[in-house]
Amino acid sequence: MLLRTYRQQVDKKIMTTNKCLLSLLLSICGSMVAAQEATPKHALMPVPASVEFHPERLVIDGSFKVAIRGHSDVRLQSGIGRFIKRLQGRTVLAFPPGLSSDDQTTTLVVHCEGPGQAIPSVGENESYRIDITARQAVLYAPTVVGALRGLETLLQLVESDRSGFYLPGVKIQDQPRFPWRGLLIDVGRHFETIDVLKRNLDAMAAVKLNVFHWHLTEDQGFRIESKKFPKLHQLGSDGLFYTQDQVREVIAYARERGIRVMPEFDMPGHATSWLVGHPELGSAPGPYQIERKPGIFEPALDPTREEVYKFLEQFLGEMAALFPDAYMHIGGDENEGKQWDRNPKIQAFMKEKGIKDNHALQAYFNQRLLKILQKNGKKMIGWDEILQPELPKDVVIHSWRGTAALGEAAKRGYDGILSNGYYIDLIFSAADHYRPDPLPADSTLTPEQAKHVLGGEATMWGEWVTPETIDSRIWPRTAAVAERLWSPRTVTDVEDMYRRLDVVSLQLEELGLTHLKNVDMMLRRLARSEDIGPLRTLASITEPVKEYRRYDMRPQTMLSPLTGLIDATRPDSAEARRFASMVEALLSDAPRLQLYREEINRTLADWLHASLALDPIIDRTPALEEARPLAKDLSDLGETGLEAMSYLKSGMVPTTAWREAKLAGLAQAAIPKSALEFMVISSVKKLVIAAAERSQLKSTTPAEWKKRITTLATLPRQ
Amino acid sequence: MLLRTYRQQVDKKIMTTNKCLLSLLLSICGSMVAAQEATPKHALMPVPASVEFHPERLVIDGSFKVAIRGHSDVRLQSGIGRFIKRLQGRTVLAFPPGLSSDDQTTTLVVHCEGPGQAIPSVGENESYRIDITARQAVLYAPTVVGALRGLETLLQLVESDRSGFYLPGVKIQDQPRFPWRGLLIDVGRHFETIDVLKRNLDAMAAVKLNVFHWHLTEDQGFRIESKKFPKLHQLGSDGLFYTQDQVREVIAYARERGIRVMPEFDMPGHATSWLVGHPELGSAPGPYQIERKPGIFEPALDPTREEVYKFLEQFLGEMAALFPDAYMHIGGDENEGKQWDRNPKIQAFMKEKGIKDNHALQAYFNQRLLKILQKNGKKMIGWDEILQPELPKDVVIHSWRGTAALGEAAKRGYDGILSNGYYIDLIFSAADHYRPDPLPADSTLTPEQAKHVLGGEATMWGEWVTPETIDSRIWPRTAAVAERLWSPRTVTDVEDMYRRLDVVSLQLEELGLTHLKNVDMMLRRLARSEDIGPLRTLASITEPVKEYRRYDMRPQTMLSPLTGLIDATRPDSAEARRFASMVEALLSDAPRLQLYREEINRTLADWLHASLALDPIIDRTPALEEARPLAKDLSDLGETGLEAMSYLKSGMVPTTAWREAKLAGLAQAAIPKSALEFMVISSVKKLVIAAAERSQLKSTTPAEWKKRITTLATLPRQ
Repeated sequence: MLLRTYRQQVDKKIMTTNKCLLSLLLSICGSMVAAQEATPKHALMPVPASVEFHPERLVIDGSFKVAIRGHSDVRLQSGIGRFIKRLQGRTVLAFPPGLSSDDQTTTLVVHCEGPGQAIPSVGENESYRIDITARQAVLYAPTVVGALRGLETLLQLVESDRSGFYLPGVKIQDQPRFPWRGLLIDVGRHFETIDVLKRNLDAMAAVKLNVFHWHLTEDQGFRIESKKFPKLHQLGSDGLFYTQDQVREVIAYARERGIRVMPEFDMPGHATSWLVGHPELGSAPGPYQIERKPGIFEPALDPTREEVYKFLEQFLGEMAALFPDAYMHIGGDENEGKQWDRNPKIQAFMKEKGIKDNHALQAYFNQRLLKILQKNGKKMIGWDEILQPELPKDVVIHSWRGTAALGEAAKRGYDGILSNGYYIDLIFSAADHYRPDPLPADSTLTPEQAKHVLGGEATMWGEWVTPETIDSRIWPRTAAVAERLWSPRTVTDVEDMYRRLDVVSLQLEELGLTHLKNVDMMLRRLARSEDIGPLRTLASITEPVKEYRRYDMRPQTMLSPLTGLIDATRPDSAEARRFASMVEALLSDAPRLQLYREEINRTLADWLHASLALDPIIDRTPALEEARPLAKDLSDLGETGLEAMSYLKSGMVPTTAWREAKLAGLAQAAIPKSALEFMVISSVKKLVIAAAERSQLKSTTPAEWKKRITTLATLPRQ
Repeated sequence: MLLRTYRQQVDKKIMTTNKCLLSLLLSICGSMVAAQEATPKHALMPVPASVEFHPERLVIDGSFKVAIRGHSDVRLQSGIGRFIKRLQGRTVLAFPPGLSSDDQTTTLVVHCEGPGQAIPSVGENESYRIDITARQAVLYAPTVVGALRGLETLLQLVESDRSGFYLPGVKIQDQPRFPWRGLLIDVGRHFETIDVLKRNLDAMAAVKLNVFHWHLTEDQGFRIESKKFPKLHQLGSDGLFYTQDQVREVIAYARERGIRVMPEFDMPGHATSWLVGHPELGSAPGPYQIERKPGIFEPALDPTREEVYKFLEQFLGEMAALFPDAYMHIGGDENEGKQWDRNPKIQAFMKEKGIKDNHALQAYFNQRLLKILQKNGKKMIGWDEILQPELPKDVVIHSWRGTAALGEAAKRGYDGILSNGYYIDLIFSAADHYRPDPLPADSTLTPEQAKHVLGGEATMWGEWVTPETIDSRIWPRTAAVAERLWSPRTVTDVEDMYRRLDVVSLQLEELGLTHLKNVDMMLRRLARSEDIGPLRTLASITEPVKEYRRYDMRPQTMLSPLTGLIDATRPDSAEARRFASMVEALLSDAPRLQLYREEINRTLADWLHASLALDPIIDRTPALEEARPLAKDLSDLGETGLEAMSYLKSGMVPTTAWREAKLAGLAQAAIPKSALEFMVISSVKKLVIAAAERSQLKSTTPAEWKKRITTLATLPRQ
């Protein structure tokens, strides 16, 4: 009898709390709502150009073997080796070692036509085909890089049920929409170890990105060894720089994964760290110190002195020999020219040469730079600012300004890539980054002009990231950008993107990415305890403030520890999205208003529990003192939500005073504290308004009622 | 009203479930029971030779600065830099950058007398003193290494409360009990990356270990580049080896932390991987392949051929130049000589030279080896087996056999170190490894003989570890070994050791150690979901089987994936210890039997919940199929425990049939499945027996009753 009672309790709890089931339901709902995809079930990301599933399945068991047909080389074999290791890791199956020589009976045949380009380039053929039947999977690709892309797709295709692991029957034909799909990592402001770069290259390959844009120099650090000018890295980096051997190691690692490595040497601004060792290059006499603050700074190279070009000729020559990529990024952004304005020699030079303003002076600098790059066989690429009237057409524009600027450049005949909309350092959601399209549907470019739009890059600017936190700032959101740049333009279903993003996020962990596991680690350090449940609850529905608001709300330098609560929280709260979905479902269930009621109540009660349990934790560790006002807000949110749910259940009408008090409380909770903000405010607001407007359900349709709730909740202030 | 009800519910839940409070209570109980330490509150590990706290405290705030007095060098400055980074990370405080030049007003003064030895040696002075007052902390050390040890102690001293972070007033005088405190990492059976080695060196330094014993060669892999004989690593390693540059990098990294790096080249057995590229060195003609299985294998170097010694002379000469440490480990273990027995030339050689058996032949080999090492200025060290009659006295014995063998060697004048008892690969508890003492209290060695006992080494043999799992197999348990080798012999309180171990374990995470965070990661991969609660519950009270039972129960090769449930679970279940403590406390609370009753019931109910929730998770992923019988056992354990608790509460007497059935069920659950075993069996057994014996409480004292329960529960089978 005792047992039966417990079983019943347990069953009840499982029915109501099982998050797996819930998220499954939610994702099925999401997929059903947006069933525009032919194949809503797969978890492929980026979505291939063409996918056709059929009901066969190819069993994956301990006899899984791979054969190579056609071209074979070390890069392909290493790629297959990594594929097998990951497949073994996931399935915990031990396959027979080595490759098979019999391509008739093996589980997988990789049929590669040729090696592709020796150095990955923007012209690389990355296409592949996959054909999976019950008998065999065949991956066909014209190049090794195409085969590597296909192997990643195969790993995303692996499914399982009680009968075992399997690959579903499918025909895939795939190639990228844009040839330039990059991730910029700024290692200037905070240094990132080789290990960080390698695991991020692995993650890039997993979502088919193909350009690692290595932002190597900044006001705050010069991160690459120069054998010709060792004072650059010796005095400009605090000892945190990459040796040339390490650079070669990273390039080789990237090439193994079909990824280009494009270096950036930001000039003439953003160059303080250069001037620490070489003040003679500056537009003011110096001396200079490594910059510690975030922001835009005055130091700039002097474009009027011949010795600067002599220096650059040697330095860029050295770098051109080190980096095999065809492109070299020269930055060119955010130079305000204040040093130039104050330097009489520069002013005299401008007058003499008839250079009318600082823009023109920078254009002059770029022309000189361009010649140096051309001499070294490199194509120049720089930020929007470099687009000046006389700029030759073989220079590439990297646009932080947006699609319009990019389109304008394309019309004038310039190749360009887009980063506006892909600034992942600004803590926006994956959905936000998913929308911007380098070539939007309403583009007015001719097909010929459109070819100039090469793709885009997500930009991981380094003000507030360390090796501990950078993965969580890049992943999984960058997979949404990767999909935008690879998949057909019509792949735009946000719900479905998130469903697949959750799967990809877990798969990235097998490559060593720390975006998930470092959260708890950082919370444990803050709490000085393994018991971090309440803190995790708080962190799960808060996010760092967006855009550049952190700068003001939490002033820090590049030497400050990035180990606070804000650093442990992640962008794009999945828990807030889950809560919002449940509230949406509840309101759609009007007039019954029962769907997810228990789960919503439980979640709200959890917030209340957590807020109360946080106080003693915060008491023990002053590093969490800044969480105290957030704990108070969390309590208010839980209480407010529970009260609203109680009204909704009972049908009782709350007073206007209650409504006003609760909305005022929510407005208070919506104010960021410690540079963190709650992502559930609007959902709780919907509950409050729904409770207050419950009686309107008698005089309107449920759909109209829900629409009204949503509208009222969206108004800036009730 | 609604709010008040919730608050009450919440308060109630917090009172009964708050694990922080509970573990605090438990640890206080533990400390009180064993209040033999003068200062039971600190979390220093290893415990210093002498500690005296006083009530002052030194505030740590944003003005924290360090000054160096006396000797200063790069190694000391780097050490202080790492100290500051970790202190900033923990406190989330930004200190003024750089060192202070004013040693009167700075928070911390590091007063170092001199550099110590250029190459860390067994004779290094590692002592230090710490004196902390409300005004200043002074760390005094005769050498840089001593200062590094003291900096680690300072980091362990940091405390906090509502008023902020602080260092407690204290006088510490400290030096190690043994000069040789090592960790062996076997990179032969599974390769470990440089990153793994570096973070483990950091962890070693944190607990004051000073020898990294690099087990570089095994039947399963030859892991170091030889420029003289490149076929060794090229054919013997699957491409998984360290370049000589990387070796130098590791040595430098270790030296920065005051850690010696002693290489081991295991000979004449354990040498299959040498013979893949150089079959001519073997005692049978070959050809040889890299060994994939675990175990002891036949291939051995041929000790009768002069060319073998010529080869070793060159190879060991190359290695001696690469490794600056005074010692070189030549292995010498587990050579069964089967190849020798079958080789007529070897037999003829033995006859000719009058070598009576294989032991004597290996002694001959060692004598030749010794001369090569001596020529290269290295001292020889090898496993017990090398201790043969004619062995010169300057050879060091590394004992896997035990204290007796070590003592015997010491009596004969040999230096020795202990590893018996410190085989951390065998999945025993920290308590098990804490007990063995290289110089136990009952040692019969004279003081002069005792000096030959240099210390000991924890041994991380590599059969079942990968970069993903190795940290959890080494840490935190190795900190207990580190304490045994550093702290006074009298420091033996197991409860207190565990209390401090929990703190150290969290601190190791700040160095990048993955022993905690990779558990959830691996569970997520297995479950293919972030919802791993039930799986985590199962994993938290199970452990891999002990000793060498895994070999038989889960046959795998060195190429098998180590990503199963057994690999995700950790040794020395903290949760099982917590449960055992609660059951102990409950039984000590007889006849009331109320202490922790609610928490025990909740824990047992959690097991039941988890077991039921596991089924659908297992259904989705065949990689967890092996967890199914464990889920069944988990359910039985929960049910059995809850029934027993119900009897204990009601005072009703269960039938004998119930008792027999439950004990039979526990015996069934105690049988390992999938090479995993539950660590809570004996605690649940106590509850069952207590329920059955409840009525005896009327006729005996509570203490006698409890003793009887414990005795009955310990019997092999009721």
